[in-house]
Parts: sequence; C-alpha cells; structure tokens
Amino acid sequence: MKTPVVPERGTLRPLGLDEVRLTAGHWAERQAVNAEHTIRHCLHWLEELGWIANFDKAAAGGPFERSGREFSDSEVYKLAEAMAWEIGRTGDPGLEERFRALTARIAAAQEEDGYLNTMFGHPGRRPRYTDLEEGHELYCYGHLLQAGVARLRCHGEDDFTRLCRRAADHVCEAFGPGGIEKVCGHAEIEVALAEFGRATGEARYLEQARLFIERRGTHTLADGGFGRVYFQDDVPVRDAEVLRGHAVRALYLASGAIDVAVATGDDMLLGAVRRQWDRAVSRRTHLTGGMGSQYTDEAFGADFALTPDRAYAESCAGVAAVQAAWRLLLATGDASCADMIERIAWNVLSGAVDPGGRAFFYANPLHQRTADEPPVAGELSHRAAGGQRAPWFDVSCCPTNLARTFAQFASYVATVDDAGVQLHQFTPAVIDTVVDGARFALSVATVYPEDGDVIVRIEANDGGERALSLRVPPWAEGARLTGPDGTVRDVEAGRPAVVTADFAAGDEIRLELPVEPRWTLPDPRIDGVRGCAAVEQGPLVLCAESVDLPGGADVAELTVDAAAAPVVRDGRVHVSARVHDRDAAGWPYGPAAPDDEGKTADIPLVPFRLRATRGPASMRVWLPLG
Amino acid sequence: MKTPVVPERGTLRPLGLDEVRLTAGHWAERQAVNAEHTIRHCLHWLEELGWIANFDKAAAGGPFERSGREFSDSEVYKLAEAMAWEIGRTGDPGLEERFRALTARIAAAQEEDGYLNTMFGHPGRRPRYTDLEEGHELYCYGHLLQAGVARLRCHGEDDFTRLCRRAADHVCEAFGPGGIEKVCGHAEIEVALAEFGRATGEARYLEQARLFIERRGTHTLADGGFGRVYFQDDVPVRDAEVLRGHAVRALYLASGAIDVAVATGDDMLLGAVRRQWDRAVSRRTHLTGGMGSQYTDEAFGADFALTPDRAYAESCAGVAAVQAAWRLLLATGDASCADMIERIAWNVLSGAVDPGGRAFFYANPLHQRTADEPPVAGELSHRAAGGQRAPWFDVSCCPTNLARTFAQFASYVATVDDAGVQLHQFTPAVIDTVVDGARFALSVATVYPEDGDVIVRIEANDGGERALSLRVPPWAEGARLTGPDGTVRDVEAGRPAVVTADFAAGDEIRLELPVEPRWTLPDPRIDGVRGCAAVEQGPLVLCAESVDLPGGADVAELTVDAAAAPVVRDGRVHVSARVHDRDAAGWPYGPAAPDDEGKTADIPLVPFRLRATRGPASMRVWLPLG
Repeated sequence: MKTPVVPERGTLRPLGLDEVRLTAGHWAERQAVNAEHTIRHCLHWLEELGWIANFDKAAAGGPFERSGREFSDSEVYKLAEAMAWEIGRTGDPGLEERFRALTARIAAAQEEDGYLNTMFGHPGRRPRYTDLEEGHELYCYGHLLQAGVARLRCHGEDDFTRLCRRAADHVCEAFGPGGIEKVCGHAEIEVALAEFGRATGEARYLEQARLFIERRGTHTLADGGFGRVYFQDDVPVRDAEVLRGHAVRALYLASGAIDVAVATGDDMLLGAVRRQWDRAVSRRTHLTGGMGSQYTDEAFGADFALTPDRAYAESCAGVAAVQAAWRLLLATGDASCADMIERIAWNVLSGAVDPGGRAFFYANPLHQRTADEPPVAGELSHRAAGGQRAPWFDVSCCPTNLARTFAQFASYVATVDDAGVQLHQFTPAVIDTVVDGARFALSVATVYPEDGDVIVRIEANDGGERALSLRVPPWAEGARLTGPDGTVRDVEAGRPAVVTADFAAGDEIRLELPVEPRWTLPDPRIDGVRGCAAVEQGPLVLCAESVDLPGGADVAELTVDAAAAPVVRDGRVHVSARVHDRDAAGWPYGPAAPDDEGKTADIPLVPFRLRATRGPASMRVWLPLG
Repeated sequence: MKTPVVPERGTLRPLGLDEVRLTAGHWAERQAVNAEHTIRHCLHWLEELGWIANFDKAAAGGPFERSGREFSDSEVYKLAEAMAWEIGRTGDPGLEERFRALTARIAAAQEEDGYLNTMFGHPGRRPRYTDLEEGHELYCYGHLLQAGVARLRCHGEDDFTRLCRRAADHVCEAFGPGGIEKVCGHAEIEVALAEFGRATGEARYLEQARLFIERRGTHTLADGGFGRVYFQDDVPVRDAEVLRGHAVRALYLASGAIDVAVATGDDMLLGAVRRQWDRAVSRRTHLTGGMGSQYTDEAFGADFALTPDRAYAESCAGVAAVQAAWRLLLATGDASCADMIERIAWNVLSGAVDPGGRAFFYANPLHQRTADEPPVAGELSHRAAGGQRAPWFDVSCCPTNLARTFAQFASYVATVDDAGVQLHQFTPAVIDTVVDGARFALSVATVYPEDGDVIVRIEANDGGERALSLRVPPWAEGARLTGPDGTVRDVEAGRPAVVTADFAAGDEIRLELPVEPRWTLPDPRIDGVRGCAAVEQGPLVLCAESVDLPGGADVAELTVDAAAAPVVRDGRVHVSARVHDRDAAGWPYGPAAPDDEGKTADIPLVPFRLRATRGPASMRVWLPLG
C-alpha cells in the first residue's frame, strides 16, 4: 500500500496514494509545485554543496574533505523518500531515472557489513558510533529506511531497498542484544525500523525498534549542555508526562513509540504517548499548531511558555507532529488528531514553503518584529534567521522534510474501517477504495477554506450500507449536513458527522462549515499573548503585516477592537484597529502606562501561511486589544 | 587614585576606595562576603578545574592537555583584579601573598615578546591570532590589563604591572599600524587599553584603543552563525543607532568607546554611544535593569522584545552596564545613569550572588516557570540552567566578574566637581575628599531602602561654600529635603537636590525618599508583560514565589488587583490576589478565554535579589492583572 504507515491494528486504516488522488485546490497545487520545483531545488543544493558527493568520496576510499554537517546524509535520504513517493504518485520516468542514479551513488558508499555513513568510520575520521549523542548515525539510517519504506511500497524491491535491508540488518547486529546498549541522540531510527519491519515483514526490525524505545530514558547517553531531556533520555517513554526537550526528537520518538505500542499490543505505552501528546497540545502548542518554544535548544518550553516572537515552531517539528498525530488517529480514531493535522498543515507546513516552492522557513514564529530583507540568492542562511524565506540553510533539514511530506500528503486525507470511509481533510479529491470487500468510490468538491461547502459525491458503491464520516472541526459551530435524500440537519462541532446509507452512484452529501472569520482568545496562563486576540478563518490563522498598515506602520503600533467582528471586504478579512505613534524616549516602566488614542483604521489581515510574500514586513498573529 | 575609571575630562570626577569607605549596610556586607567567601570560592574553582594550572603547563613548554574554554585565562585575570581592588580596600596581607603567588604563575607563561595566552600558540595548538572571531585572545588581554589598572592604582608598579605592560606593548605591536588589521570577536581590549593608558600615562595604549574602536563595524571579522551584529562588527560604533548583538560585548564596547571619546575630545563618538544607550534603556532593558533578551546568542533582542521568562539579563551584562553607565555619568553628569546603576546593582548584581557568596546566577530571568532543584554540590552547571544559583558554570564568566565589581563598589557611590560632592548611591559610608583644594568630609547614615531617610553629616569642611548634591530617584515623588538650618522643602523626583552652604562639621542634611511599595506598569508595546503589573519598593523590584502561595500553588495560577495599593505587613510587602486552580485539558485557544473566579488571598512578595533563597520555587516579577 502506497502510504507511509500501515499499522497491524487500530481503529482506522490508511489509504494509499493510488486510492486517494488530489484533483485540484491548494494541496494538489502544493504537490505539483513540490514535484516541479522543490524536489529539483533540493537536488540542486545537495549537489552544489557536495552533500551527495560525500558518498562518492566515501566510496573512493582514503581520507577526504567532507562537506556539510554530521547529519547531511539524512538530507539525501529525505530527498530520496520524497522522490520515491512522487514516483509512486505520478510514475514520472525522469524522476525514476534520477532516483536510480542517486541509488547507485549511495550504494557505492555502503560497506561490506552494511555500515553506511559519510561522517564516521573513514580514514582520518572518528570511528563508528563514538558520538551517539551528537553524531546522528542512527538518525541517518532512520531516514534511509523511511525512504526504503516509500520505495518498497511504491515500486517494490530494488537496489535501493536492498541497501536499506543491509543497513537495517547492520543496525540490528550492532545495537541488538549483546551489541552497543545505547540509543541515538536524535530519535528517528525507532519509527523507521518499525515501519521498515512492516514493509518487509521482518520481525527483527520491529524488535530492534522496541529495544530502542525501551532503552531511551535510561541514561545511556552522556549528559550534554542542554541536559538529557534534550534527547528524551531523562525519563523512559512509558513514564514521561509530557513531550519535552528538542521538539523534532520528541515527536519522532513519540511516533516510533506509537508504532511499537500498536505492533506489540502495548496499550500502556500507547496510553503514555497519548497522555504526553494531550498535555503538549493543551499547554505547549502555538495557535498555528507549531510546536517548540525555545531557540536555544529547539525545544518544547515549559507549560504555557508560548511567546509568539520567540516561537521556534520548527518546520520539521510540524512534519513530525503530523506523523505523530496521524499514528494516533489511526490507532484511536480520535478526530482531534485530524484537527491538529489540519491546523499544522495549513499554518506551519504550507507556510514554510513559498508559493514557488524554492524558499523555506526553518523557524515559524508568530510575531516578526523587524522588516528583514530577504536572504541573498544562492547563499546559505542561518536556520533561525529573519522574517523572510531562504533558499537553503546551514542546517537544512526542513526543505527535504517538507518535500517528502507534500509528496505523501494524499495519504492523510481519508481513512477506512469496516463500515465505511472517514474524510479528515477537505480538499478536491477522488477516493477509490474497498470497504468490507466491495468497491466504494467518492469524489470531493470544495474550495475550502475560502468557502465552507464540502460536497461529497458517491462515484461507486459495490457493497450495501456504508457509513460516510465527515470531520466537523471544533470551531465549526453551526455546521449543517445535507444527506443524500436532501434532509438537512445541524451537526455538532468537534464530532464527526456520520451519514449511513445504502449509497448509490450520484448520491451527494453536503457539509456546510461556517468559515466566517472569528476572534480567538488564549488560555489566561499563556503569558506571551495575554491581552491579545487572534483572528482565525476556518483552519487558517491570520496575521497583520506592516505592509498593510497606514504608512507601513510597525505592527508594534497596532491595537484592535475585538468587540467588533472581523469582516470580509474585497476578498480580505479586516479588523477594527487603532494605529498609534508612541514616543520612544525614557524609562519604559512607571506608575501609569503611557499611551495615545491612536488613529482608527480598518486593517486587512493575511493568512499566516502567506506572510512574508510581499517584501520585508513586521508581522503579528496575536493582536493587542486596545 | 584607587578607582577603575579616571577620565581626562568630564562633568564629574570619581573618588578612590581611599576616599569612600562603606561602613555598614547591604553593600558593606556584600563587600565583606565577597572578601571572605567569593574570592576564595573563585580561587578554589580555578585551581580545582585547572584553569590556573594551564599557565603552569604553558610555562613548562611542550604540548599539554588544557582545561576550560578558550577564554578561561580571563577568569584568572578577573579574579586577580578582584584581589587587587580588595587589597587596595583593606590591605589584607594574606590576599597580597596570594596575589604575588598568582602573579608568578601567570608571568612564567608569558613569552619573550609579551604574548600571553594558554589556548593558542603552543605546540600542538592553533597559532596565535588565527581565530579572532571566537578565540578571545585580545579579550583575555583586556581583563589582564584591567587587573593591571587595579594593581597600579592600589599598589603601584610590580611584577604584575610589568607583565601587563609587556602584554600591552605586544598588542600594540601586533595590532597597531602595519599589524593585523582586525578586532577581537569579544570587545574588552578597548576599554582596558584606554584605562591602562591612563594609569601608565602611555599614549600609545589609548591610541591602540582608538584604532580598535574605529576598526569595529568595518567587517574585519568573518560572519559567524549569529551574524556580524553578534560582535558589533555590522556597523561602525559612531554610526550605530542602538546597543545590539551580544549584550556583554556591546556594553564593554560602549564603555571603551566612551573612554576613547572622552580622552580624544570626540563629542560625535560620545553622542553616538549616548544615543545607543538611551534607546537601549527605553526599549531593550528589563525592569530589573537587566539587559539581553535572547538565550541563543546572549544578545539584546529587538525593541520591546522583553519577555520575562526568557530574559537572559546575564550577570556579566549587569557588570558591563554599570561600567557604561558610570562612564556616561562621569562624562555628562546625567543622574539617570546613576539611577540605572542603582537599579542594576540592587536587582541584577546583588541577586546574582547568594547571601553566602558562593553560588551564582548567570542568567537572571524575571519569571521562573518551574520549581527547579538546586544544582549538585561540586558539579559544574550549565550557564543558562534553572531557577537556583550554582557554584560554578561551564562558562563561568559571572562569578569573577561579580567579585571584581563588589570589591570596587565604593567607587560608584559618589563623585566630586569643583563645587562639591554628588551622592549617587545611598548607603552608610564615610566620604573624605578634597574639593577645590580643601578637605571636605561627610558621613552617610541610612537603612535605605528599607527606610527612605538618608542623613548626611558634614564631618569636615576646610573650604568655604560647598554644594552637596543628592540624587533623587525618578520614582521618589514627594521626596523632601531638610537643610542644615532645619528648613524643609519638597524636592523634585528625577533631579538632583542640591544644598549649597558654607558647611561646618556637624551640619546635617536629611533626604526623605518615599519607599512605600508601588505598582509599576509597562509601556504598552512590551508584549511579554502586557496585562501585568509589578511591585517596586524604592530601587527594589519585588517578585512572587510559589513558596509564599497558599498550598505552594504555581505562580501561573496567580492574578492580582492593582487597584489596591500594596501594603507592608509584618515587614513584608503584600498584594491583593486571586489564586486559581484552572483546568489543563484541551486546546487552549477558543472564542472565550476560560477562567475561574479563584480564591482571594493576600500574597507576600520578596525582593527579586532574594529570590530562590528558600528552596525550589516558581517565581514571577510581572503579575497578571485579574
């Protein structure tokens, strides 16, 4: 099945890229741009910087000058995964050719015993596995194996999957019982081995994933500058209360733990991850769905430490959070996981790539104080820099991670169970699958979220009674559903709306979601946004940018009136605001807060994902109440 | 003169440690604890970790295993400076003996041509001056020369000052005209060379300081991961608009630039630094006087980026800000600089050391979310870690920096001009100096800031009419002054109160400052503290700690009523508050902010400097308004 996660059991079952096809709209366009531009762009930079050439040099033997950081191999593998899914989606022969060429270069660098890494174990370099804390060797294998999963499921066994098998076997040899009793400083091998085990049917890979999950938190890693919490080696997975430490590490680990729990029937472990996820969602997640508060260690902060201007909300943490939420959704059927996928996808993932697919955000703060100039074309940017997307980074994990996610995005749109189909994401698509042994096909028509109408048309039903479940987001108060017989009913926000019928081809179901823009207020304990409100429209978080303010005023000078509902005018959402022009001199603290009346103005907002697409601007999601 | 800064010109002139003696009260106690405990504590750790032994090993020649970070030599020099001032203050013969022993070990490592550094230029190590961006070689010389200034002024020429001269000569050779045309990644050599030039009368040292100041901002350093702004090499000093980049670097540089401007009569340069300082004070300074908002690069953030829980407010930035403010005060006579010194001294510096003088804060955030356990005794702590003071750090610049500052603290209490004496800091002291050629002596009696009465008694006046100027802080609305003739008058807050008279011994002047606790509100543009108020009492910033809340509730559950004035009861300041017990589940954003009424309670506050002295606690300065 052409899909990244195929659990042994669970409430819902995934669909493959051959069962769900995106036909139009935002996500189809993101996929097209990804195929047309992003994948090529990544390939260009990986060649340009010599990160692929590292494999050629390692294959040649002898000492060599290596390019990139210790984890640069993983960028090559993530791009290979993106290519593998894209080939699975479209069968693009040119891409297939490039994939094979890349395979040959990677394979040449693999050693006799399966070891494969351009950073360690070569003449003049540190020996294998001498820096598990920071060396990322197992992390790199993890991304290799996830590419192997994509290739096996979209193509079948070939040179690439065989080199993956050798690598996986080597990891089991080296880190299995009697081997090195440690884990990798960056979780990733766990989730990869578990799925590679599913894709190959090799039980030892899953068992090795289980070993790694159980080992983490037992202090097998040395305590670094950020503490063991940084790589979740502080507390065993099953004992932890919340997601913590480096956000991408935490979320890859959670994904791997869910896979292991599902595969082994370990409900205690599944419950532990679920508890950690729930607390992270309620106390450690930004409005955009972004996770990670700290620039220093790219980490989840403490509960309620959600400052918008220093929200790290790394793009890769968005990718990883979607992976974790998807696994929880399959395991539990809880629609709130699909709500979170929607929020992250629209606000973090889509906004992390520019519309042209060749510039990226690494960090996704909700407040940009300065109107920064765009990066110089052709130069590497610092990952945490500035308010404009950059073509590539010193640490460039995000572009390839986004590329593989967009290529597999159709997988996250819908699921099946024995009763029918569950539609989780609203986007024009054709879903053609089998329910309980009989074909069940439907198409989705919508221009969501610009409009809230979602029309599902039954294209084929070779079985009898089927349940069609449509997610109703928690913000969708007043949503209505029109059944195939034309009856209209109110449906509850935050609970799936289910229509059960002996559907016939041509039947239509219409879900009406209220997508009027709305004010959103934060939990009073979130210090960073106290006294502010934000505007959302459907799943979209909106923001104000200085380029839309009178005279290009800084967003620091903006206050809003949340008593007045936001309105749509000329196709854009507007809010009632005041624009101030405050004195900057003197000590800024005193017996009374100085302020001026300001000038009233109707300010247009822009979807967060489209920020920084109109030149340098200061920007904020959370708008101070006047 | 036993004082760290002796400018060629300026509105006010400094007094030496032999002219101002602290007789009792908080600062005398801090000095005693510093002498008794902190200096010994630092010496112990420097020996224990081998940072002094690095000099012995370098002296022995041949390759050696070196301890500590690249800048660890500077800790030894800062401790030497603390010892030199302390010897100047008390003449402690045991300390003098230790100083000489340390001198011998340092001197043995100096090379023929004056070069002195244990990190570079030794067999098996990188050659001299091959990493000016990060190597800290010139920075280390800077701290050496500041110790040399202290030794020259408190003792006179000796082996230590001679080794300093050789080092300064070497720097001028190596980096002067025709030499290496670069600066050091960490400013410090500038301020040190300027003052060492003043102390020795060698004009070439000042000229070299001037060269370094002019060179910075011309991109002589390679752009690192944090950008050239990190080490202020982005824009020339005289063109910059605000203090920016790494806070300690920025403030040491500002201090050096003021020295050069004053020495060369460069009012444009002085004006530029003044402008940068003023903007930093009005937009980039925390209520405590702490400077630096970003953990990642220990840097000033953008304007109004002053989040309390991620306020870095490094202790060393407090030390450096006092240095800059003191130089501006001497140059301009602007009492607001003394206000800032008071604020930083009471809230940052005093609080960065525990009352016993053997545990330290490196970062001084205004909000501690978690009740952290104290560090393990005898172990190094990460500099940015947690809510409890630590005995020593991986990067341990702060303990020795605080030690040298407390040892010289009497210098910052008062100044003179041709008309009389200006009293800047209120602490029990005897000031015995010469005004316009004649002895003028006075004593200060006060228990400020617990009480606002400051009584100045004239002890001797061998001249005629003298002006006694007493700083009246800007918060001191309603302050009154009683002249030597018993007349009482109101004095204006924020302007010095001057009494001019033909004083006779026994005359008393009484300044009454209102030190009732008061609510303080922030500029509405400071996003991190919107909707909050803080309580101050005189110069003290207060905070709430969880150990004082009913049931030890987390400070996240606190809201306060700022309509009710804070009151003093049983010797502690109390505020009217509500303590909540809020539900944690679910998505924390929605159409209405969930909240509960909470239970009303009178909550005692504690001075910020005394936080974390009663075991693990969550803490906050800025209290959310209920």
